[in-house]
Amino acid sequence: MSLVQIYDTTLRDGSQAEGIAFSCEDKIKITLSLDKMGFHYIEGGWPGSNPKDMQFFKQIRGHALKTARLAAFGPTRKAGESTENDPNVRSILESGAQVATIFGKSWDFHVRKALGVSLEENLAMIRDTIAYLKSCGLEVICDAEHFFDGYKANPAYALETVRMAKEGGASTIVLCDTNGGSLPMEVKEIVALVVERFNIPVGIHAHNDCEMAVANSLMAVQAGAVHVQGTVNGYGERCGNANLCSIIPNLTLKCGVDTIPRENLVRLTELSRYVSEVANLSPYTHQPYVGASAFAHKGGVHVSALLKDSKSYEHIDPELVGNRRRVLVSELSGKSNLLYKYKELNLQVDQQSSEGKRILEEIKKLENQGFQFEGAEGSFELLLRKANNEYTEPFSLETLRLLVEVKGNGPPYSEAIIKMKVGDKTVHTAAEGNGPVNALDNALRKALESFYPRIKSMHLSDYKVRVLDEKDGTGAVVRVHIETGDGRRSWGTVGVSENIIEASWQALADSIAYGLL
Amino acid sequence: MSLVQIYDTTLRDGSQAEGIAFSCEDKIKITLSLDKMGFHYIEGGWPGSNPKDMQFFKQIRGHALKTARLAAFGPTRKAGESTENDPNVRSILESGAQVATIFGKSWDFHVRKALGVSLEENLAMIRDTIAYLKSCGLEVICDAEHFFDGYKANPAYALETVRMAKEGGASTIVLCDTNGGSLPMEVKEIVALVVERFNIPVGIHAHNDCEMAVANSLMAVQAGAVHVQGTVNGYGERCGNANLCSIIPNLTLKCGVDTIPRENLVRLTELSRYVSEVANLSPYTHQPYVGASAFAHKGGVHVSALLKDSKSYEHIDPELVGNRRRVLVSELSGKSNLLYKYKELNLQVDQQSSEGKRILEEIKKLENQGFQFEGAEGSFELLLRKANNEYTEPFSLETLRLLVEVKGNGPPYSEAIIKMKVGDKTVHTAAEGNGPVNALDNALRKALESFYPRIKSMHLSDYKVRVLDEKDGTGAVVRVHIETGDGRRSWGTVGVSENIIEASWQALADSIAYGLL
Repeated sequence: MSLVQIYDTTLRDGSQAEGIAFSCEDKIKITLSLDKMGFHYIEGGWPGSNPKDMQFFKQIRGHALKTARLAAFGPTRKAGESTENDPNVRSILESGAQVATIFGKSWDFHVRKALGVSLEENLAMIRDTIAYLKSCGLEVICDAEHFFDGYKANPAYALETVRMAKEGGASTIVLCDTNGGSLPMEVKEIVALVVERFNIPVGIHAHNDCEMAVANSLMAVQAGAVHVQGTVNGYGERCGNANLCSIIPNLTLKCGVDTIPRENLVRLTELSRYVSEVANLSPYTHQPYVGASAFAHKGGVHVSALLKDSKSYEHIDPELVGNRRRVLVSELSGKSNLLYKYKELNLQVDQQSSEGKRILEEIKKLENQGFQFEGAEGSFELLLRKANNEYTEPFSLETLRLLVEVKGNGPPYSEAIIKMKVGDKTVHTAAEGNGPVNALDNALRKALESFYPRIKSMHLSDYKVRVLDEKDGTGAVVRVHIETGDGRRSWGTVGVSENIIEASWQALADSIAYGLL
Repeated sequence: MSLVQIYDTTLRDGSQAEGIAFSCEDKIKITLSLDKMGFHYIEGGWPGSNPKDMQFFKQIRGHALKTARLAAFGPTRKAGESTENDPNVRSILESGAQVATIFGKSWDFHVRKALGVSLEENLAMIRDTIAYLKSCGLEVICDAEHFFDGYKANPAYALETVRMAKEGGASTIVLCDTNGGSLPMEVKEIVALVVERFNIPVGIHAHNDCEMAVANSLMAVQAGAVHVQGTVNGYGERCGNANLCSIIPNLTLKCGVDTIPRENLVRLTELSRYVSEVANLSPYTHQPYVGASAFAHKGGVHVSALLKDSKSYEHIDPELVGNRRRVLVSELSGKSNLLYKYKELNLQVDQQSSEGKRILEEIKKLENQGFQFEGAEGSFELLLRKANNEYTEPFSLETLRLLVEVKGNGPPYSEAIIKMKVGDKTVHTAAEGNGPVNALDNALRKALESFYPRIKSMHLSDYKVRVLDEKDGTGAVVRVHIETGDGRRSWGTVGVSENIIEASWQALADSIAYGLL
């Protein structure tokens, strides 16, 4: 089995995505998780471009990486100046990284227009920078920027830049589709040509502007590339980089190519979600292989066939990548979807009974109001259990009052006053909070903690608000979705109201009630 | 130039996406917008599966479509029964659609396991159903379900299903990668084989489970397919269907293949966002071609080169698909990014001045607090104008008090009391609302309308809340993002606070202040 090296640039190219701003601590966390997965290279940043990246390289030295080699990124030396004194080159050496990834221009148009130097000087810049860093004991990878556009514009010059990188001593030449405009067939053809012409390992670095980054990476491997650059979840500038969370399972499970150790593949979903959590981005639910919807089935025909054999509508077993099958309940669901849910929850309900039909009606009614049980399994299970008379509410609200005051430039004040029944006892209490939902959360916990000490271990991990009918502006119905965890597992709950406080209350109350099951 | 027909299944396969539930009215709206774009076929639904889909086909008859043919979807007849009396077949005829799209099984495993019928009977079901609907005057398209998996398992049988569909009189045979597990090279090879073997138009229907749906569709076209099925924004079950918003510009702009009329391509971004609005899903910002980030540049090197020539880091001119270039300001930005913003806003600021540096510092400080100006151009422009002393606040807050009360099962009560300065006048007023943010919005408008009547034309079109440090649960800092429009244009504003009411106030106040510029 052939081996393709996985080179991660989440911390450098990925951080150029709109919406991402990693702290140094974030970068350390991600590095350690990538190393644990068995990635071959981790590009930590561009130490010459900002102090945070240099700080990262200093701090990471305190951690021993098991499998990954750490790479520092930077451009070729400045035109007409010495390599030794070039500030970017010095920063790379100072960073202490074992690998230098040097990007050099392969497109004559860019050399003239963006750099404003002669074609000859650019060639010297590539060779000199690589040769110097290599002489300092580093492994040097060359990122041939805009290689495909360059090759299409001036093939002789683009190939000459590769020759210079090889002459300088690069360990791998990575052909970059920097603008993401190339299509699979041309990538395959051009990579094959470079592989054949130069006796040196070739890599691919693709961007997703044509929705082709994963396909282009696979085509490059098919044409002989042995090194793939990309990012976790495909994060990156514009439309993103090549998504390693798709490339790795595609290569490993479908192309018979080794990448990361096979036994680590089951942690791929965990890695994807961990990185999105650190990046503070909502996971993209429809993401191939690792998304929460990747193996979620809604159509009745599909679920009915899945009950017979999971291969019917799944291209792989979700557990191979650490993901799981989900069956959704909606107006498109036939009885099979509810049946599947009942089986999953171990509930005994006769589908044909009037009770079974009543539950389906109730679900459809709530969905019409704007409830969405997809992704809110906690609220859904409570509903099923209530309908099935298998459930007693642990508490019920009598009144709730909320006050917020903002005065001049001082900090705002938030207070929640709550009166509720727990069994046959009445609790009446109040709490402050940073904000109104926090005050509500605090008051609810304060009221319940003496009855249910387990509540202390539950914490809210995400809180989302969605305006349902945008045309109604701030008066619209909102859906609040809360994700709660207790360290072992996590569950989603949902609330819907024109009033964000009431919707938050519903989702909060469900989250605690579900956690107490 | 060859022509590839665009067949849209957003309303049928797209509606199986987790998170999508179209009303009949939504489906009518989307149909009209697809027709206006010049799509060749619009699959309206599966009339036999649910009453809403049948209702759609009845209502759409009141609208004359200009270019699109309307298709109704359904399975082959039931095993061992007559075609004329099959309920799905009758529903298709009753729907009044001009085109029937019949899905038949091509994978022997599915025929035996999911359908539980003999391989011979399945062939008869395909031929009979198509032949009967054709004899009723409909155009019949055959969707060969699981064709690629079927071909890989039992090529002779899979090809036999195609022969039956052709014998039945299908106008086009669409090869479906139903489970989305196929890779580009195999799709190309298998499509080419079918095209060569049968003298009949061949189509492709791809799913995105390997992140290959767009690539597979292009490969099929390269192998001779003349019909592509997909959905707007790639909506669909699991990881989605093939994304027509990428396929159309890839084919038109890069492969020299005609699809929709060339002059309609500039409305592609509008179509994508319109459908996501109707679907009530946030647009995916990093989506190729049409996403808000698709031509957004953050890295200083990129922006500096773009200032010289836009071709440097853009694979096409964004205006070709109705999108636009954006330059983001963040810690990764060099001075070029600010310079670009100044140019865009027509502000005169000397980059080198202490003032220029102070503004950059201020932006970085606010971003550390959690502000994100990407996507909140309104707040960002106000900040720049303030820093540049080109701006007088139209109003300022003195105190704000907010009260919410929830009692038993009655509707909650929300009230906002607001005291503010407008010029040298003091306004003190109060308003109710459906919820607290609505009450706040109402009070603010009530206080300002007599001073600024233009406010009446501004409406809030989206309201988003993002918990920034999820580990702090309901006590975390939240960022509120508001999108406001006045019918002509729309703008984003942002607020950040531990208190959702204060953050909402900041974003609301900015949205009105920016609208008054």
